[in-house]
Amino acid sequence: MEQAEVRFRVRYAETDQMGVVYHANYLVWMEMARTELCRVRGVRYRDIELQDGVLLAVVEVNCRYLAPARYDDEIVARAKLAASNPRMITFGYEILRAETGQTLSTGETKHMFLDKDGRRVRVPQKYRSLFAIEA
Amino acid sequence: MEQAEVRFRVRYAETDQMGVVYHANYLVWMEMARTELCRVRGVRYRDIELQDGVLLAVVEVNCRYLAPARYDDEIVARAKLAASNPRMITFGYEILRAETGQTLSTGETKHMFLDKDGRRVRVPQKYRSLFAIEA
Amino acid sequence: MEQAEVRFRVRYAETDQMGVVYHANYLVWMEMARTELCRVRGVRYRDIELQDGVLLAVVEVNCRYLAPARYDDEIVARAKLAASNPRMITFGYEILRAETGQTLSTGETKHMFLDKDGRRVRVPQKYRSLFAIEA
Amino acid sequence: MEQAEVRFRVRYAETDQMGVVYHANYLVWMEMARTELCRVRGVRYRDIELQDGVLLAVVEVNCRYLAPARYDDEIVARAKLAASNPRMITFGYEILRAETGQTLSTGETKHMFLDKDGRRVRVPQKYRSLFAIEA
Repeated sequence: MEQAEVRFRVRYAETDQMGVVYHANYLVWMEMARTELCRVRGVRYRDIELQDGVLLAVVEVNCRYLAPARYDDEIVARAKLAASNPRMITFGYEILRAETGQTLSTGETKHMFLDKDGRRVRVPQKYRSLFAIEA
Repeated sequence: MEQAEVRFRVRYAETDQMGVVYHANYLVWMEMARTELCRVRGVRYRDIELQDGVLLAVVEVNCRYLAPARYDDEIVARAKLAASNPRMITFGYEILRAETGQTLSTGETKHMFLDKDGRRVRVPQKYRSLFAIEA
Repeated sequence: MEQAEVRFRVRYAETDQMGVVYHANYLVWMEMARTELCRVRGVRYRDIELQDGVLLAVVEVNCRYLAPARYDDEIVARAKLAASNPRMITFGYEILRAETGQTLSTGETKHMFLDKDGRRVRVPQKYRSLFAIEA
Repeated sequence: MEQAEVRFRVRYAETDQMGVVYHANYLVWMEMARTELCRVRGVRYRDIELQDGVLLAVVEVNCRYLAPARYDDEIVARAKLAASNPRMITFGYEILRAETGQTLSTGETKHMFLDKDGRRVRVPQKYRSLFAIEA
Protein backbone atom coordinates (compact mmCIF):
# COMPACT_ATOMS: atom_id res chain seq x y z
CA MET A 1 0.00 0.00 0.00
CA GLU A 2 1.35 3.40 -0.91
CA GLN A 3 2.31 5.91 1.70
CA ALA A 4 2.76 9.66 1.68
CA GLU A 5 5.14 11.88 3.54
CA VAL A 6 5.65 15.49 4.49
CA ARG A 7 8.90 17.19 5.48
CA PHE A 8 9.19 20.21 7.73
CA ARG A 9 11.30 21.72 10.49
CA VAL A 10 10.35 21.66 14.16
CA ARG A 11 8.95 25.04 15.20
CA TYR A 12 10.10 26.79 18.35
CA ALA A 13 6.43 26.91 19.37
CA GLU A 14 6.36 23.11 19.34
CA THR A 15 9.00 22.70 22.04
CA ASP A 16 8.29 22.68 25.76
CA GLN A 17 10.44 23.40 28.78
CA MET A 18 11.87 19.88 28.63
CA GLY A 19 13.74 21.18 25.56
CA VAL A 20 12.02 18.76 23.21
CA VAL A 21 8.83 18.69 21.18
CA TYR A 22 5.69 18.59 23.33
CA HIS A 23 4.06 15.20 22.81
CA ALA A 24 0.65 16.42 21.60
CA ASN A 25 2.28 17.97 18.52
CA TYR A 26 2.98 14.54 17.06
CA LEU A 27 -0.76 14.20 16.52
CA VAL A 28 -0.67 17.37 14.44
CA TRP A 29 2.20 15.97 12.40
CA MET A 30 0.27 12.75 11.82
CA GLU A 31 -2.65 14.86 10.56
CA MET A 32 -0.34 16.62 8.09
CA ALA A 33 0.83 13.29 6.69
CA ARG A 34 -2.77 12.07 6.50
CA THR A 35 -3.78 15.15 4.49
CA GLU A 36 -0.88 14.50 2.14
CA LEU A 37 -1.86 10.85 1.72
CA CYS A 38 -5.32 11.93 0.58
CA ARG A 39 -3.75 14.40 -1.85
CA VAL A 40 -1.44 11.75 -3.30
CA ARG A 41 -4.46 9.52 -3.80
CA GLY A 42 -6.28 12.27 -5.68
CA VAL A 43 -8.51 13.89 -3.09
CA ARG A 44 -8.02 17.16 -1.27
CA TYR A 45 -9.21 16.42 2.20
CA ARG A 46 -10.78 19.83 2.57
CA ASP A 47 -13.03 19.12 -0.41
CA ILE A 48 -14.52 16.15 1.42
CA GLU A 49 -15.83 18.53 4.04
CA LEU A 50 -16.75 21.33 1.67
CA GLN A 51 -18.42 19.35 -1.07
CA ASP A 52 -20.05 16.43 0.62
CA GLY A 53 -21.09 17.64 4.00
CA VAL A 54 -19.44 14.77 5.80
CA LEU A 55 -16.61 14.89 8.28
CA LEU A 56 -13.91 12.33 8.91
CA ALA A 57 -13.75 12.44 12.70
CA VAL A 58 -10.92 11.02 14.78
CA VAL A 59 -12.29 8.38 17.14
CA GLU A 60 -9.05 6.95 18.52
CA VAL A 61 -5.38 7.87 18.66
CA ASN A 62 -2.39 5.82 19.75
CA CYS A 63 1.13 7.16 19.76
CA ARG A 64 4.42 5.77 21.01
CA TYR A 65 7.40 8.06 21.63
CA LEU A 66 10.78 6.49 20.98
CA ALA A 67 13.17 9.43 20.82
CA PRO A 68 12.72 13.19 21.15
CA ALA A 69 12.51 15.71 18.34
CA ARG A 70 14.18 19.07 18.91
CA TYR A 71 13.77 22.61 17.65
CA ASP A 72 14.82 23.08 14.02
CA ASP A 73 15.24 19.35 13.42
CA GLU A 74 14.07 18.36 9.97
CA ILE A 75 11.25 15.86 10.38
CA VAL A 76 9.62 13.39 8.02
CA ALA A 77 6.07 12.32 8.85
CA ARG A 78 4.72 9.32 6.93
CA ALA A 79 1.15 8.07 6.70
CA LYS A 80 -0.35 4.99 5.15
CA LEU A 81 -3.75 3.38 5.12
CA ALA A 82 -3.53 0.56 7.64
CA ALA A 83 -7.06 -0.86 7.50
CA SER A 84 -10.45 0.18 6.21
CA ASN A 85 -14.05 -0.91 6.00
CA PRO A 86 -17.26 1.00 5.28
CA ARG A 87 -17.50 2.07 8.93
CA MET A 88 -13.93 2.70 10.05
CA ILE A 89 -10.65 3.80 8.53
CA THR A 90 -7.29 3.26 10.24
CA PHE A 91 -4.13 5.14 9.32
CA GLY A 92 -0.63 4.22 10.47
CA TYR A 93 2.19 6.71 10.94
CA GLU A 94 5.90 6.93 11.37
CA ILE A 95 7.76 10.08 12.44
CA LEU A 96 11.46 10.19 11.54
CA ARG A 97 14.38 12.54 12.00
CA ALA A 98 15.26 13.31 8.38
CA GLU A 99 19.01 13.63 8.86
CA THR A 100 19.53 10.24 10.46
CA GLY A 101 16.42 8.31 9.51
CA GLN A 102 15.87 7.52 13.19
CA THR A 103 12.27 6.66 14.05
CA LEU A 104 11.04 9.09 16.68
CA SER A 105 7.46 7.95 16.96
CA THR A 106 4.90 5.53 15.57
CA GLY A 107 1.16 5.77 15.83
CA GLU A 108 -2.28 4.99 14.53
CA THR A 109 -5.53 6.93 14.23
CA LYS A 110 -9.01 5.55 13.67
CA HIS A 111 -11.67 7.59 11.92
CA MET A 112 -15.38 7.43 11.23
CA PHE A 113 -17.51 9.50 8.89
CA LEU A 114 -20.05 11.80 10.51
CA ASP A 115 -22.88 13.70 8.85
CA LYS A 116 -23.55 17.37 9.60
CA ASP A 117 -25.52 16.41 12.70
CA GLY A 118 -22.66 14.37 14.09
CA ARG A 119 -24.20 10.99 13.35
CA ARG A 120 -21.96 8.17 12.21
CA VAL A 121 -22.49 7.28 8.57
CA ARG A 122 -20.92 4.78 6.21
CA VAL A 123 -18.07 5.94 3.98
CA PRO A 124 -19.67 7.68 0.96
CA GLN A 125 -19.42 5.60 -2.22
CA LYS A 126 -17.26 8.17 -4.01
CA TYR A 127 -14.55 7.93 -1.37
CA ARG A 128 -14.37 4.17 -1.18
CA SER A 129 -11.54 3.90 -3.66
CA LEU A 130 -9.65 6.65 -1.82
CA PHE A 131 -9.76 4.54 1.31
CA ALA A 132 -9.37 1.20 -0.47
CA ILE A 133 -12.78 -0.04 0.58
CA GLU A 134 -14.17 -2.70 -1.69
CA ALA A 135 -17.67 -2.00 -2.97
CA MET B 1 -15.69 50.78 32.45
CA GLU B 2 -16.07 47.34 33.91
CA GLN B 3 -13.55 44.64 33.27
CA ALA B 4 -13.61 40.87 33.49
CA GLU B 5 -10.96 38.39 34.45
CA VAL B 6 -10.18 34.71 34.25
CA ARG B 7 -7.81 32.72 36.44
CA PHE B 8 -5.97 29.59 35.39
CA ARG B 9 -2.65 27.81 35.72
CA VAL B 10 0.00 27.76 33.01
CA ARG B 11 -0.08 24.47 31.11
CA TYR B 12 3.07 22.52 30.39
CA ALA B 13 2.05 22.64 26.74
CA GLU B 14 2.28 26.42 26.84
CA THR B 15 5.98 26.50 27.72
CA ASP B 16 8.81 26.43 25.21
CA GLN B 17 12.43 25.40 25.44
CA MET B 18 13.31 28.80 26.89
CA GLY B 19 11.55 27.49 30.02
CA VAL B 20 8.84 30.14 29.89
CA VAL B 21 5.47 30.54 28.20
CA TYR B 22 5.69 30.81 24.42
CA HIS B 23 4.69 34.33 23.44
CA ALA B 24 1.82 33.44 21.10
CA ASN B 25 -0.11 31.90 24.00
CA TYR B 26 -0.73 35.33 25.51
CA LEU B 27 -3.08 35.99 22.61
CA VAL B 28 -5.06 32.91 23.63
CA TRP B 29 -5.23 34.17 27.20
CA MET B 30 -6.47 37.55 25.99
CA GLU B 31 -9.20 35.75 24.05
CA MET B 32 -10.26 33.90 27.24
CA ALA B 33 -10.60 37.20 29.10
CA ARG B 34 -12.52 38.69 26.16
CA THR B 35 -14.98 35.79 26.21
CA GLU B 36 -15.45 36.32 29.94
CA LEU B 37 -16.03 40.05 29.48
CA CYS B 38 -18.88 39.29 27.06
CA ARG B 39 -20.33 36.81 29.56
CA VAL B 40 -20.17 39.33 32.40
CA ARG B 41 -21.98 41.81 30.17
CA GLY B 42 -24.73 39.29 29.46
CA VAL B 43 -23.80 37.71 26.15
CA ARG B 44 -22.25 34.36 25.48
CA TYR B 45 -19.82 35.03 22.69
CA ARG B 46 -20.58 31.74 21.02
CA ASP B 47 -24.21 32.75 20.67
CA ILE B 48 -23.21 35.75 18.57
CA GLU B 49 -21.81 33.37 16.01
CA LEU B 50 -24.51 30.75 16.33
CA GLN B 51 -27.56 32.96 16.41
CA ASP B 52 -26.73 35.94 14.27
CA GLY B 53 -24.48 34.67 11.57
CA VAL B 54 -21.89 37.33 12.17
CA LEU B 55 -18.32 36.88 13.29
CA LEU B 56 -16.20 39.19 15.39
CA ALA B 57 -12.89 38.91 13.55
CA VAL B 58 -9.54 40.01 14.94
CA VAL B 59 -8.02 42.64 12.67
CA GLU B 60 -5.07 43.74 14.79
CA VAL B 61 -3.13 42.54 17.82
CA ASN B 62 -0.51 44.31 19.89
CA CYS B 63 1.21 42.70 22.84
CA ARG B 64 4.08 43.77 25.06
CA TYR B 65 5.96 41.24 27.20
CA LEU B 66 7.26 42.57 30.49
CA ALA B 67 8.11 39.45 32.49
CA PRO B 68 7.88 35.74 31.77
CA ALA B 69 5.16 33.36 32.94
CA ARG B 70 6.24 29.86 33.93
CA TYR B 71 4.68 26.41 34.08
CA ASP B 72 2.09 26.01 36.84
CA ASP B 73 2.06 29.75 37.67
CA GLU B 74 -1.41 30.96 38.47
CA ILE B 75 -2.31 33.66 35.96
CA VAL B 76 -4.98 36.35 35.92
CA ALA B 77 -6.00 37.65 32.49
CA ARG B 78 -8.11 40.82 32.46
CA ALA B 79 -10.03 42.37 29.59
CA LYS B 80 -11.89 45.62 29.26
CA LEU B 81 -13.52 47.48 26.42
CA ALA B 82 -11.04 50.16 25.41
CA ALA B 83 -12.86 51.85 22.54
CA SER B 84 -15.78 51.13 20.26
CA ASN B 85 -17.72 52.52 17.34
CA PRO B 86 -20.13 50.89 14.90
CA ARG B 87 -17.23 49.69 12.74
CA MET B 88 -14.50 48.73 15.19
CA ILE B 89 -14.19 47.44 18.75
CA THR B 90 -10.97 47.63 20.75
CA PHE B 91 -10.27 45.57 23.84
CA GLY B 92 -7.43 46.17 26.29
CA TYR B 93 -5.75 43.44 28.35
CA GLU B 94 -3.50 42.92 31.28
CA ILE B 95 -1.89 39.59 32.17
CA LEU B 96 -0.76 39.23 35.79
CA ARG B 97 0.95 36.63 37.96
CA ALA B 98 -1.76 35.97 40.56
CA GLU B 99 0.57 35.33 43.47
CA THR B 100 2.46 38.60 43.24
CA GLY B 101 0.18 40.82 41.17
CA GLN B 102 3.11 41.48 38.84
CA THR B 103 2.07 42.57 35.35
CA LEU B 104 3.50 40.13 32.82
CA SER B 105 2.00 41.54 29.66
CA THR B 106 -0.32 44.21 28.31
CA GLY B 107 -2.04 44.25 24.96
CA GLU B 108 -4.86 45.35 22.73
CA THR B 109 -6.93 43.68 20.04
CA LYS B 110 -9.09 45.34 17.41
CA HIS B 111 -12.11 43.60 15.93
CA MET B 112 -14.59 44.08 13.14
CA PHE B 113 -17.83 42.28 12.45
CA LEU B 114 -17.95 40.12 9.33
CA ASP B 115 -20.96 38.51 7.71
CA LYS B 116 -20.97 34.90 6.58
CA ASP B 117 -19.26 35.86 3.33
CA GLY B 118 -16.44 37.61 5.14
CA ARG B 119 -17.61 41.15 4.34
CA ARG B 120 -17.20 43.82 6.97
CA VAL B 121 -20.51 44.91 8.46
CA ARG B 122 -21.53 47.38 11.15
CA VAL B 123 -22.05 46.07 14.67
CA PRO B 124 -25.60 44.62 14.78
CA GLN B 125 -28.02 46.79 16.75
CA LYS B 126 -28.63 44.14 19.40
CA TYR B 127 -24.95 44.05 20.36
CA ARG B 128 -24.41 47.79 20.59
CA SER B 129 -25.05 47.94 24.31
CA LEU B 130 -22.72 44.98 24.84
CA PHE B 131 -19.95 46.94 23.19
CA ALA B 132 -21.00 50.32 24.60
CA ILE B 133 -21.75 51.77 21.20
CA GLU B 134 -24.22 54.62 21.33
CA ALA B 135 -27.19 54.29 19.00
CA MET C 1 -7.12 5.04 44.37
CA GLU C 2 -7.68 8.74 44.60
CA GLN C 3 -8.14 10.87 41.55
CA ALA C 4 -7.80 14.56 40.85
CA GLU C 5 -9.69 16.84 38.54
CA VAL C 6 -9.46 20.22 36.92
CA ARG C 7 -12.29 22.35 35.57
CA PHE C 8 -12.01 24.89 32.78
CA ARG C 9 -13.81 26.25 29.75
CA VAL C 10 -12.96 25.32 26.17
CA ARG C 11 -10.91 28.06 24.52
CA TYR C 12 -11.74 29.38 21.08
CA ALA C 13 -8.16 28.52 20.13
CA GLU C 14 -8.86 24.87 20.89
CA THR C 15 -11.59 24.51 18.26
CA ASP C 16 -10.98 23.65 14.63
CA GLN C 17 -12.99 24.22 11.48
CA MET C 18 -15.12 21.17 12.26
CA GLY C 19 -16.60 23.39 14.99
CA VAL C 20 -15.40 21.14 17.80
CA VAL C 21 -12.23 20.80 19.86
CA TYR C 22 -9.22 19.64 17.85
CA HIS C 23 -8.33 16.15 19.01
CA ALA C 24 -4.74 16.83 20.05
CA ASN C 25 -5.93 19.24 22.75
CA TYR C 26 -7.30 16.38 24.81
CA LEU C 27 -3.70 15.37 25.48
CA VAL C 28 -3.09 18.83 26.93
CA TRP C 29 -6.15 18.47 29.15
CA MET C 30 -4.91 15.09 30.36
CA GLU C 31 -1.60 16.73 31.25
CA MET C 32 -3.44 19.39 33.29
CA ALA C 33 -5.25 16.70 35.28
CA ARG C 34 -1.97 14.81 35.77
CA THR C 35 -0.32 17.94 37.17
CA GLU C 36 -3.25 18.37 39.54
CA LEU C 37 -3.03 14.73 40.65
CA CYS C 38 0.59 15.26 41.66
CA ARG C 39 -0.37 18.42 43.53
CA VAL C 40 -3.16 16.62 45.41
CA ARG C 41 -0.67 13.95 46.39
CA GLY C 42 1.73 16.56 47.74
CA VAL C 43 4.20 17.17 44.93
CA ARG C 44 4.36 20.07 42.52
CA TYR C 45 5.29 18.45 39.27
CA ARG C 46 7.53 21.32 38.31
CA ASP C 47 9.63 20.74 41.39
CA ILE C 48 10.44 17.22 40.20
CA GLU C 49 12.14 18.73 37.20
CA LEU C 50 13.67 21.68 39.00
CA GLN C 51 14.96 19.95 42.11
CA ASP C 52 15.90 16.50 41.05
CA GLY C 53 17.11 16.81 37.51
CA VAL C 54 14.88 14.04 36.28
CA LEU C 55 12.09 14.27 33.74
CA LEU C 56 8.91 12.27 33.57
CA ALA C 57 8.72 11.69 29.83
CA VAL C 58 5.62 10.51 28.00
CA VAL C 59 6.36 7.26 26.20
CA GLU C 60 2.87 6.31 25.05
CA VAL C 61 -0.54 7.93 24.68
CA ASN C 62 -3.91 6.38 23.92
CA CYS C 63 -7.07 8.40 23.59
CA ARG C 64 -10.62 7.52 22.55
CA TYR C 65 -13.05 10.22 21.45
CA LEU C 66 -16.67 9.54 22.32
CA ALA C 67 -18.39 12.89 21.88
CA PRO C 68 -17.19 16.33 20.85
CA ALA C 69 -16.39 19.24 23.14
CA ARG C 70 -17.34 22.71 21.91
CA TYR C 71 -16.18 26.26 22.48
CA ASP C 72 -17.04 27.61 25.93
CA ASP C 73 -18.21 24.23 27.24
CA GLU C 74 -17.19 23.69 30.83
CA ILE C 75 -14.96 20.63 30.96
CA VAL C 76 -13.84 18.37 33.78
CA ALA C 77 -10.62 16.44 33.24
CA ARG C 78 -9.89 13.65 35.72
CA ALA C 79 -6.66 11.75 36.25
CA LYS C 80 -5.81 8.76 38.37
CA LEU C 81 -2.81 6.54 38.77
CA ALA C 82 -3.66 3.39 36.82
CA ALA C 83 -0.51 1.32 37.32
CA SER C 84 3.04 1.85 38.45
CA ASN C 85 6.31 0.09 38.94
CA PRO C 86 9.87 1.37 39.34
CA ARG C 87 10.28 1.66 35.57
CA MET C 88 6.90 2.80 34.27
CA ILE C 89 3.95 4.83 35.49
CA THR C 90 0.53 4.71 33.85
CA PHE C 91 -2.15 7.34 34.34
CA GLY C 92 -5.79 6.97 33.32
CA TYR C 93 -8.05 9.86 32.32
CA GLU C 94 -11.63 10.76 31.78
CA ILE C 95 -12.80 13.97 30.10
CA LEU C 96 -16.39 15.01 30.88
CA ARG C 97 -18.76 17.80 29.92
CA ALA C 98 -19.39 19.39 33.32
CA GLU C 99 -22.99 20.39 32.70
CA THR C 100 -24.23 16.94 31.76
CA GLY C 101 -21.58 14.62 33.14
CA GLN C 102 -21.29 13.06 29.69
CA THR C 103 -17.97 11.33 29.07
CA LEU C 104 -16.29 12.90 26.05
CA SER C 105 -13.04 10.99 26.06
CA THR C 106 -11.03 8.42 27.94
CA GLY C 107 -7.31 7.83 27.72
CA GLU C 108 -4.09 6.59 29.21
CA THR C 109 -0.51 7.84 29.21
CA LYS C 110 2.62 5.89 30.08
CA HIS C 111 5.68 7.62 31.46
CA MET C 112 9.29 6.82 32.25
CA PHE C 113 11.84 8.79 34.20
CA LEU C 114 14.77 10.16 32.22
CA ASP C 115 17.96 11.72 33.54
CA LYS C 116 19.37 14.94 32.14
CA ASP C 117 21.03 13.03 29.31
CA GLY C 118 17.79 11.41 28.27
CA ARG C 119 18.61 7.98 29.67
CA ARG C 120 15.87 5.96 31.28
CA VAL C 121 16.25 5.67 35.03
CA ARG C 122 14.23 4.07 37.81
CA VAL C 123 11.73 6.20 39.72
CA PRO C 124 13.71 8.10 42.37
CA GLN C 125 13.09 6.78 45.89
CA LYS C 126 11.56 10.03 47.11
CA TYR C 127 8.80 9.87 44.50
CA ARG C 128 7.83 6.25 45.03
CA SER C 129 5.05 7.05 47.44
CA LEU C 130 3.76 9.73 45.08
CA PHE C 131 3.39 7.11 42.41
CA ALA C 132 2.32 4.32 44.80
CA ILE C 133 5.38 2.21 44.05
CA GLU C 134 6.23 -0.21 46.82
CA ALA C 135 9.77 -0.02 48.04
CA MET D 1 18.21 44.33 3.21
CA GLU D 2 17.80 40.69 2.42
CA GLN D 3 14.77 38.77 3.51
CA ALA D 4 14.06 35.09 4.00
CA GLU D 5 10.94 33.06 3.47
CA VAL D 6 9.42 29.73 4.36
CA ARG D 7 6.65 27.90 2.55
CA PHE D 8 4.20 25.49 4.14
CA ARG D 9 0.58 24.42 4.09
CA VAL D 10 -1.96 25.43 6.71
CA ARG D 11 -2.52 22.62 9.20
CA TYR D 12 -6.00 21.52 10.21
CA ALA D 13 -4.91 22.13 13.80
CA GLU D 14 -4.35 25.79 12.97
CA THR D 15 -7.96 26.46 12.01
CA ASP D 16 -10.68 27.45 14.44
CA GLN D 17 -14.45 27.18 14.34
CA MET D 18 -14.63 30.34 12.25
CA GLY D 19 -13.25 28.12 9.46
CA VAL D 20 -10.05 30.14 9.14
CA VAL D 21 -6.63 30.13 10.79
CA TYR D 22 -6.72 31.16 14.45
CA HIS D 23 -5.00 34.51 14.76
CA ALA D 24 -2.32 33.51 17.28
CA ASN D 25 -0.82 31.08 14.76
CA TYR D 26 0.48 33.94 12.64
CA LEU D 27 2.98 34.63 15.42
CA VAL D 28 4.25 31.09 15.04
CA TRP D 29 4.62 31.58 11.29
CA MET D 30 6.54 34.80 11.86
CA GLU D 31 8.88 32.87 14.16
CA MET D 32 9.48 30.28 11.42
CA ALA D 33 10.45 33.02 8.97
CA ARG D 34 12.69 34.62 11.60
CA THR D 35 14.50 31.31 12.16
CA GLU D 36 15.00 31.01 8.40
CA LEU D 37 16.35 34.55 8.15
CA CYS D 38 19.02 33.71 10.72
CA ARG D 39 19.88 30.53 8.80
CA VAL D 40 20.19 32.45 5.51
CA ARG D 41 22.52 34.88 7.24
CA GLY D 42 24.71 32.04 8.49
CA VAL D 43 23.54 31.36 12.02
CA ARG D 44 21.33 28.58 13.28
CA TYR D 45 19.16 30.26 15.85
CA ARG D 46 19.27 27.27 18.12
CA ASP D 47 23.03 27.54 18.35
CA ILE D 48 22.71 31.03 19.81
CA GLU D 49 20.91 29.51 22.76
CA LEU D 50 23.02 26.39 23.00
CA GLN D 51 26.47 27.89 22.56
CA ASP D 52 26.28 31.32 24.06
CA GLY D 53 23.88 31.07 26.92
CA VAL D 54 21.88 34.04 25.76
CA LEU D 55 18.26 34.12 24.68
CA LEU D 56 16.62 36.39 22.14
CA ALA D 57 13.36 37.15 23.93
CA VAL D 58 10.28 38.64 22.28
CA VAL D 59 9.39 41.91 23.99
CA GLU D 60 6.69 43.17 21.63
CA VAL D 61 4.48 41.84 18.84
CA ASN D 62 2.24 43.69 16.42
CA CYS D 63 0.18 41.93 13.80
CA ARG D 64 -2.46 43.12 11.34
CA TYR D 65 -4.85 40.68 9.71
CA LEU D 66 -5.93 41.61 6.19
CA ALA D 67 -7.45 38.42 4.82
CA PRO D 68 -7.98 34.95 6.25
CA ALA D 69 -5.84 31.88 5.61
CA ARG D 70 -7.65 28.57 5.27
CA TYR D 71 -6.83 24.92 5.83
CA ASP D 72 -4.45 23.47 3.25
CA ASP D 73 -3.66 26.88 1.72
CA GLU D 74 -0.03 27.16 0.76
CA ILE D 75 1.46 30.03 2.73
CA VAL D 76 4.63 32.06 2.33
CA ALA D 77 5.97 33.76 5.45
CA ARG D 78 8.70 36.37 4.91
CA ALA D 79 10.96 38.00 7.48
CA LYS D 80 13.45 40.80 7.22
CA LEU D 81 15.50 42.80 9.68
CA ALA D 82 13.63 46.08 10.09
CA ALA D 83 15.83 47.87 12.62
CA SER D 84 18.59 47.02 15.07
CA ASN D 85 20.82 48.50 17.69
CA PRO D 86 22.90 46.92 20.45
CA ARG D 87 19.86 46.77 22.75
CA MET D 88 16.93 45.94 20.48
CA ILE D 89 16.29 44.08 17.23
CA THR D 90 13.13 44.56 15.17
CA PHE D 91 11.96 42.13 12.51
CA GLY D 92 9.26 42.82 9.94
CA TYR D 93 7.03 40.16 8.39
CA GLU D 94 4.65 39.56 5.57
CA ILE D 95 2.36 36.54 5.31
CA LEU D 96 1.10 35.73 1.80
CA ARG D 97 -1.13 33.18 0.15
CA ALA D 98 1.32 31.49 -2.22
CA GLU D 99 -1.14 30.81 -5.03
CA THR D 100 -2.31 34.38 -5.47
CA GLY D 101 0.40 36.44 -3.82
CA GLN D 102 -2.28 38.12 -1.70
CA THR D 103 -0.95 39.61 1.54
CA LEU D 104 -2.81 38.05 4.46
CA SER D 105 -0.98 39.68 7.31
CA THR D 106 1.86 42.03 8.18
CA GLY D 107 3.61 42.35 11.49
CA GLU D 108 6.65 43.24 13.53
CA THR D 109 8.39 41.72 16.54
CA LYS D 110 10.89 43.38 18.84
CA HIS D 111 13.52 41.36 20.68
CA MET D 112 16.09 41.84 23.39
CA PHE D 113 18.91 39.58 24.47
CA LEU D 114 18.64 38.06 27.94
CA ASP D 115 21.28 36.23 29.89
CA LYS D 116 20.58 32.97 31.70
CA ASP D 117 19.16 34.87 34.66
CA GLY D 118 16.72 36.78 32.50
CA ARG D 119 18.61 40.07 32.63
CA ARG D 120 18.73 42.22 29.54
CA VAL D 121 22.16 42.31 27.93
CA ARG D 122 23.62 43.95 24.84
CA VAL D 123 23.80 41.93 21.65
CA PRO D 124 26.95 39.77 21.88
CA GLN D 125 29.73 40.98 19.57
CA LYS D 126 29.73 37.80 17.49
CA TYR D 127 26.08 38.31 16.50
CA ARG D 128 26.34 41.96 15.56
CA SER D 129 26.91 41.26 11.88
CA LEU D 130 24.02 38.80 11.88
CA PHE D 131 21.74 41.56 13.06
CA ALA D 132 23.43 44.33 11.06
CA ILE D 133 24.56 46.20 14.14
CA GLU D 134 27.56 48.42 13.53
CA ALA D 135 30.38 47.95 15.98
